[in-house]
Amino acid sequence: MAARSTIMDANSFRSEHADRLDLDTRKLTDRRDELLGGSYRLFYRNPVHLVRGEGQYLWDANGTKYLDMYNNVASIGHAHPAVVEAVHTQMKQLNTHTRYIHERILDYTDSFRNTLPDYMDPMDFKAMYVCTGSEANDLALRVAKSFSGGTGLIATTEAYHGNSELSSGVSPALGAGQPVGSDVWLIEAPDAYRTGEADIGAWFARRIRDTIADMAESGVTFAGFIADSIFSSDGVLPGDYLAEAIDVVHGAGGIFIADEVQPGFARTGDHFWGFANHGVTPDIITTGKPMGNGIPVAGVLARSDVLEAFSGSLPYFNTFGGNPVSMAAAQAVLDVIEREGLQEHARIIGAEALDAFRQVGGRHHQVGDVRGAGLFIGFELVTDPATREPDHALALDMLEELKARGVLTSVAGPFGNVLKLRPPLPFTRSDIPWAADALDESLRVLTARG
Amino acid sequence: MAARSTIMDANSFRSEHADRLDLDTRKLTDRRDELLGGSYRLFYRNPVHLVRGEGQYLWDANGTKYLDMYNNVASIGHAHPAVVEAVHTQMKQLNTHTRYIHERILDYTDSFRNTLPDYMDPMDFKAMYVCTGSEANDLALRVAKSFSGGTGLIATTEAYHGNSELSSGVSPALGAGQPVGSDVWLIEAPDAYRTGEADIGAWFARRIRDTIADMAESGVTFAGFIADSIFSSDGVLPGDYLAEAIDVVHGAGGIFIADEVQPGFARTGDHFWGFANHGVTPDIITTGKPMGNGIPVAGVLARSDVLEAFSGSLPYFNTFGGNPVSMAAAQAVLDVIEREGLQEHARIIGAEALDAFRQVGGRHHQVGDVRGAGLFIGFELVTDPATREPDHALALDMLEELKARGVLTSVAGPFGNVLKLRPPLPFTRSDIPWAADALDESLRVLTARG
Repeated sequence: MAARSTIMDANSFRSEHADRLDLDTRKLTDRRDELLGGSYRLFYRNPVHLVRGEGQYLWDANGTKYLDMYNNVASIGHAHPAVVEAVHTQMKQLNTHTRYIHERILDYTDSFRNTLPDYMDPMDFKAMYVCTGSEANDLALRVAKSFSGGTGLIATTEAYHGNSELSSGVSPALGAGQPVGSDVWLIEAPDAYRTGEADIGAWFARRIRDTIADMAESGVTFAGFIADSIFSSDGVLPGDYLAEAIDVVHGAGGIFIADEVQPGFARTGDHFWGFANHGVTPDIITTGKPMGNGIPVAGVLARSDVLEAFSGSLPYFNTFGGNPVSMAAAQAVLDVIEREGLQEHARIIGAEALDAFRQVGGRHHQVGDVRGAGLFIGFELVTDPATREPDHALALDMLEELKARGVLTSVAGPFGNVLKLRPPLPFTRSDIPWAADALDESLRVLTARG
Repeated sequence: MAARSTIMDANSFRSEHADRLDLDTRKLTDRRDELLGGSYRLFYRNPVHLVRGEGQYLWDANGTKYLDMYNNVASIGHAHPAVVEAVHTQMKQLNTHTRYIHERILDYTDSFRNTLPDYMDPMDFKAMYVCTGSEANDLALRVAKSFSGGTGLIATTEAYHGNSELSSGVSPALGAGQPVGSDVWLIEAPDAYRTGEADIGAWFARRIRDTIADMAESGVTFAGFIADSIFSSDGVLPGDYLAEAIDVVHGAGGIFIADEVQPGFARTGDHFWGFANHGVTPDIITTGKPMGNGIPVAGVLARSDVLEAFSGSLPYFNTFGGNPVSMAAAQAVLDVIEREGLQEHARIIGAEALDAFRQVGGRHHQVGDVRGAGLFIGFELVTDPATREPDHALALDMLEELKARGVLTSVAGPFGNVLKLRPPLPFTRSDIPWAADALDESLRVLTARG
């Protein structure tokens, strides 16, 4: 099985691929090498040079049209005119910071809190705005420590929660070069397919309980548990199994940080928020990618008393956070989700896509599992369904074959063998055959070869 | 003298001021209390509700026009049409991330590197893009540690370098509630006025040398020194005195991080970059606020070999960082600075403004010092020029009086007694009397009372 450290850059262009590029692409990858830091990675052995987007479609410099099955930043659709116009209108008026009064941040926070599920009281929560999911998680982790008085954090073994020093410490998906933070305990993700556990919720709750006990034995006070409720980097694990684990977290005085950068904003169909699929109540909710459809805006929505433990002593200020332009973009996103019925759309079309992709899976024994919630689907590749041995090499080859058929996506999971199918929400019924046929044909081509 | 912990929220609305607000403002401050985390602070006892900006001017909801003498985010002018249009055009086409090829980030990096002073070779530097100055400094500090193999950092006692956990640790300006980072040594800023030192450069270099020695004695390996070359939060300290200190840093194997969030992007007039006023060569340059005129974009420009120490092991990825829309905004900012000659403008108009403000200072013995570089001016208030005792209370009252005369600004420095006069760069000759008269009249009114 692939070592964890190779996963993050697995789907990536590397210098040994350079000779096979066409001249235009080669010129651009050379310029990147010359101009940008070496941490930058391009997707694909033959990278894509994109110039235009609309809805769920992207076009490259040669005019080739792609079906975007990966990007949740342009969540309501690439270049959505409602966001374009909202940003344009606000930019012409004013863009400034939160040390002056502006109504956009207040109106947005009203709308934002009202997206919480019925079993939660929006009045119990207050918002803080930042610019990236990393900033949101960095702040959330600090708030969790302030409130709990502890330092011990739990995350999953392939989690990704950000790129700041603090959030990198709970992001083992970054690979072996990234040290795990001090007082961070990593636990295996609740993967029902891979563990074969019938009651994954009870299994995961036991892990959490044991880890908190470990921590106590090491003299570390438990601060909290951070997780993306669909465990996107851990391989896309939809379901309704976290309630018992979160009860354990709360019972031990810990904070549950729901990182909604991946599952939030209507994507999972049944609910606006990913955590709501589990019926749990987070103490802190963090958001990022899909919030402004590409404009850098992110947020922390936290229980007022939890936030107070931090804000009582610290005048946190984020210069660009919550500025009128970012808030205009974010408001347009919420308005479009409601007006275009994108949550219900994700529920219906996601179920149809899942069904279609499962039919593809049924025709190829290398497809171990196909699982999803709304428009967030994991397509897991194995050498053999009996052994469940992950097939990382096949997954990487699939990405290239899918691209050749105009379908863009990438991989996830500790073994890099799960295709992450997560299109912009306008992905619709008529796009399903494109994606399903591309999966089917790519599998046929690759498994015939092998 | 005021305790450090009170400075950050000194110019701020507090609940005890609520009764004096008009009904509309009161409604909005109440909504903020209900919706936003308690870390949010509003400027002024009677906060400003802004609705429009253009160039160096801002308008509130009642139509009152203000001269903006504070904001360096809208650095080339509020709602500058070149940025508005560049963002609009790019948003209609595509906004995506750096794992696909896009030319904007390459073209921008070409322009960005070419802003380096003549004595530096742009080819030695590579760029990484993030969304905020905090993210830039968080990354820069990690890179400095990777390259040096050390953990020991030096910052000044009233520095502000960001809001992430790591960058907060070198940001004592956040107040007593914010712990100084582990292995962070704080040293007094090179304040020629307050220390009365004739050779502030030699004095500061000694401080750096002694601190590195202290570190070594404590068994901590020196990683680097982070400073904003105009020491904005430390009270605005322009000049040409850092060369000896930076030689000491480099001699000890440390990294010099030039935090250019404040002095960069043509503000100081003589140079595009603040550090160039000192003729020094940073190993890492970080940028933020003025880079996108309000669109969240920030960057790290670092020596290739320094960056390589980090990027060799870590696949850092920032979802929104370097996206085509942010790059379009950043490109428009550079183009406007050049096309409108804003650096030369800052040099000429800044000198005239400094002269005018010094004349005001000459008429009031409470003005201890007026100093500046280009359009970045510090106006220091004292109880008596002989004792140089800082007058924080007068500075706060000045902010309110200036606002009453339509001039917006705020305070800086360890004693919160330095008015930070830092207008958008279009601030021009005809604006000088408005600012100077407001300073003069405010001082007259307040000192007559006292």
